[in-house]
Amino acid sequence: MTRQLHLNAFLMNTGHHEASWRLPESDPYAHVDLAHHVRLARTAERGTFDSLFLADGPQLWSSVGQRPAGALEPLTLLTALATATEHIGLIATASTSYNSPYNLARKFASLDIISGGRAGWNIVTTAGAEAARNFGLDAEPAHAERYARAAEFLDVALKLWDSWEDDTIVADKAAGVWGDDAKIHPPRHRGTYFQVEGALNVPRSPQGYPLLVQAGSSEDGKRFAARYAEAVFTAQQTLADAQAFYTDLKSRVRQSGRDPEHLKVLPGIVPVIGSTQAEARANERILEDHIVHTHGVERLESLLHLEPGTLELDAPLPADLPPESAIEGAKSRYTLVVELARRERLTVRELIGRLGGGRGHLTFAGTPEQVADEIERWFTLGAADGFNIMPAVLPSGLETFVDQVVPLLRTRGLLRTEYGPRRTLRDRYGLPRPANQHVTARPALATA
Amino acid sequence: MTRQLHLNAFLMNTGHHEASWRLPESDPYAHVDLAHHVRLARTAERGTFDSLFLADGPQLWSSVGQRPAGALEPLTLLTALATATEHIGLIATASTSYNSPYNLARKFASLDIISGGRAGWNIVTTAGAEAARNFGLDAEPAHAERYARAAEFLDVALKLWDSWEDDTIVADKAAGVWGDDAKIHPPRHRGTYFQVEGALNVPRSPQGYPLLVQAGSSEDGKRFAARYAEAVFTAQQTLADAQAFYTDLKSRVRQSGRDPEHLKVLPGIVPVIGSTQAEARANERILEDHIVHTHGVERLESLLHLEPGTLELDAPLPADLPPESAIEGAKSRYTLVVELARRERLTVRELIGRLGGGRGHLTFAGTPEQVADEIERWFTLGAADGFNIMPAVLPSGLETFVDQVVPLLRTRGLLRTEYGPRRTLRDRYGLPRPANQHVTARPALATA
Repeated sequence: MTRQLHLNAFLMNTGHHEASWRLPESDPYAHVDLAHHVRLARTAERGTFDSLFLADGPQLWSSVGQRPAGALEPLTLLTALATATEHIGLIATASTSYNSPYNLARKFASLDIISGGRAGWNIVTTAGAEAARNFGLDAEPAHAERYARAAEFLDVALKLWDSWEDDTIVADKAAGVWGDDAKIHPPRHRGTYFQVEGALNVPRSPQGYPLLVQAGSSEDGKRFAARYAEAVFTAQQTLADAQAFYTDLKSRVRQSGRDPEHLKVLPGIVPVIGSTQAEARANERILEDHIVHTHGVERLESLLHLEPGTLELDAPLPADLPPESAIEGAKSRYTLVVELARRERLTVRELIGRLGGGRGHLTFAGTPEQVADEIERWFTLGAADGFNIMPAVLPSGLETFVDQVVPLLRTRGLLRTEYGPRRTLRDRYGLPRPANQHVTARPALATA
Repeated sequence: MTRQLHLNAFLMNTGHHEASWRLPESDPYAHVDLAHHVRLARTAERGTFDSLFLADGPQLWSSVGQRPAGALEPLTLLTALATATEHIGLIATASTSYNSPYNLARKFASLDIISGGRAGWNIVTTAGAEAARNFGLDAEPAHAERYARAAEFLDVALKLWDSWEDDTIVADKAAGVWGDDAKIHPPRHRGTYFQVEGALNVPRSPQGYPLLVQAGSSEDGKRFAARYAEAVFTAQQTLADAQAFYTDLKSRVRQSGRDPEHLKVLPGIVPVIGSTQAEARANERILEDHIVHTHGVERLESLLHLEPGTLELDAPLPADLPPESAIEGAKSRYTLVVELARRERLTVRELIGRLGGGRGHLTFAGTPEQVADEIERWFTLGAADGFNIMPAVLPSGLETFVDQVVPLLRTRGLLRTEYGPRRTLRDRYGLPRPANQHVTARPALATA
């Protein structure tokens, strides 16, 4: 089979554009409406996407005055969506800084079982003092420490998911023996951040582990991804940057002793579609015209770690911004935004317009043909294994993509036309099911 | 309307009897089968039960050799069941000792929204060193400390659920104002166990809070229940004990300044039903005959905090057991079991048989008429506001109860015949929706 695209639908309330909720078509209560999310999930499934995805942070992300804030908790929402869909993968963001491995491992194993092997975990360390202050801390832990904790968290989670061998249950009713105690492997983990003694209380799930996804593109993030991730979401503004990122990450995976094919790179794209290029550009302009720029300035100052009142709307960014190494949270996004503004000589107002759609992800306005061309170009030129599709407006943007771009991608042989018999999220991404670490460690027994 | 029973279906894999999984009808994989749980939920809904309920502890509860161990995580499973049912309440157990208030408050608010106001939380402090060792501790926290933490946890959770007023969202698209920032109330909590600064990232849910349920009957447990609980599950072996517990708890609720009607008491009952009393008794005997007594001895020794090898199968309990005050976990269950054995002069073998069905809850074998009579007797004689129905075998035990006992209760006017228009779990239990603490504190503004 020729190499095919992997598509992920990144769902977000009324859409990724910060002003999307103000359009006449948008439901301002969409964020808490299960039916809205079911409609999105089924649309993505109609487009034979590999997966859908929900971002998350354990804090209120913005002032409610500015835009829709708050949402259904991702693992909860995805569990409900699991029952409304059959094929599509379900990827939830969850934080390694503000969860316990035992609790989180249970939830993902349960979702994987309930969905028949469709669970994925976008592993985040959660930047920002706001989240930290919701969990007993006065300030966020340092970037490096968050990643050290994340690595140990993963090691513990893998031990928990492997704490039951796949064939633990023997169900011998006559003898009164339900399972084989020898196939239970308590982690007995005593590390720097965690002590976890006992086996998980959920059997090993269809995928063994959820698909492991990562989205930070800092040095720490890339090191972590090379070691653990099976899919990476990334924000890239230019083909050249995306190619460099892709090559670098695949090389790091190889250096970690893993098969580079076992990590899929998915840049984000915010497609704004029109029947002509002019119509697409007009659709983009309508969204930009709904941006409240004073709010945009506040958010940009927060992202750039500047004091409120520093930025002027019709001036460029200050010349003396600190280097990425001095930034403690959302490092790679910081650099992307600063480079975007400098490269294109944008004023603060223009920069806010450019960030309004995808918060740093590439916004691409064009016809369905042009969108398909751009996707194919990145895919064939070594910049992507697929895309994280981030519609500016939901549900209409996803429906337009599925109705108008997906058929083109299928005609070109770049996208599956149906899901086929293999069912798990790992199957979709062409990834192997992970062996249990206790079984691979004793091959003689496993084949006996 | 005359006073009516409140029924809760306590679901547990293949049934509450420890040997239920060994019956020919039982599916040994039921614990991870969503379809099994959907069938149970719909059966309970056919019986117009108020709610269904899942127990939980963050540890593997028993050796897998002995019986089905492990289960789907309750909040995850109930979210899936929310989409498969319309009316029935969904009560999940979750621990205040091994969760963060911010995470747990989000999950319950999300389930309450997704289910249209049907979420309930059985608040537990989680006894036992096994759980503690899965969360970085070497031993379980002391009983009193667990309850002190639970009380502060509740206070924080209530602050989080009230951190959005009900009418926060204004959705003014023209002005670009989505919500009223003045109606967001960050907890800014700095206590003994928790610091939680920010508002929840989920709007206030249909019920305001999930229904608050409690199940510990120790002194600490009853104090906690009197202050917070809206429903209490309890194990009572005799009518007299149940009456004393009921009277005591209602009196404590009154002393806390609450309406005693706003706390419902539901003793557990394990109904074993037959078309004649002899058949019911035979059904009970079949289950007892499938008990593996060596496993029962181990579990009883663990419950009574005895060294392995202390108990002899055909002897009574030792005379020198410590008083409840010396026990750190599952205090009230300890006393119940010791008193049951002494009152009825049971050998260890007989005691294991009596505990096999309900782990201390009343097992009642009889015809549908006799089961209905017993329920009516406790209900009318001041021992119960309803019952926690714990079928020995699932799904058959629940189906028999719904098909044969429920019609009798309805004929007697003791149980609703349909759900009616009111939808939330609190509606079912006849409880008011809680006011937001920030709104009641400023009545002048609220009525302006």
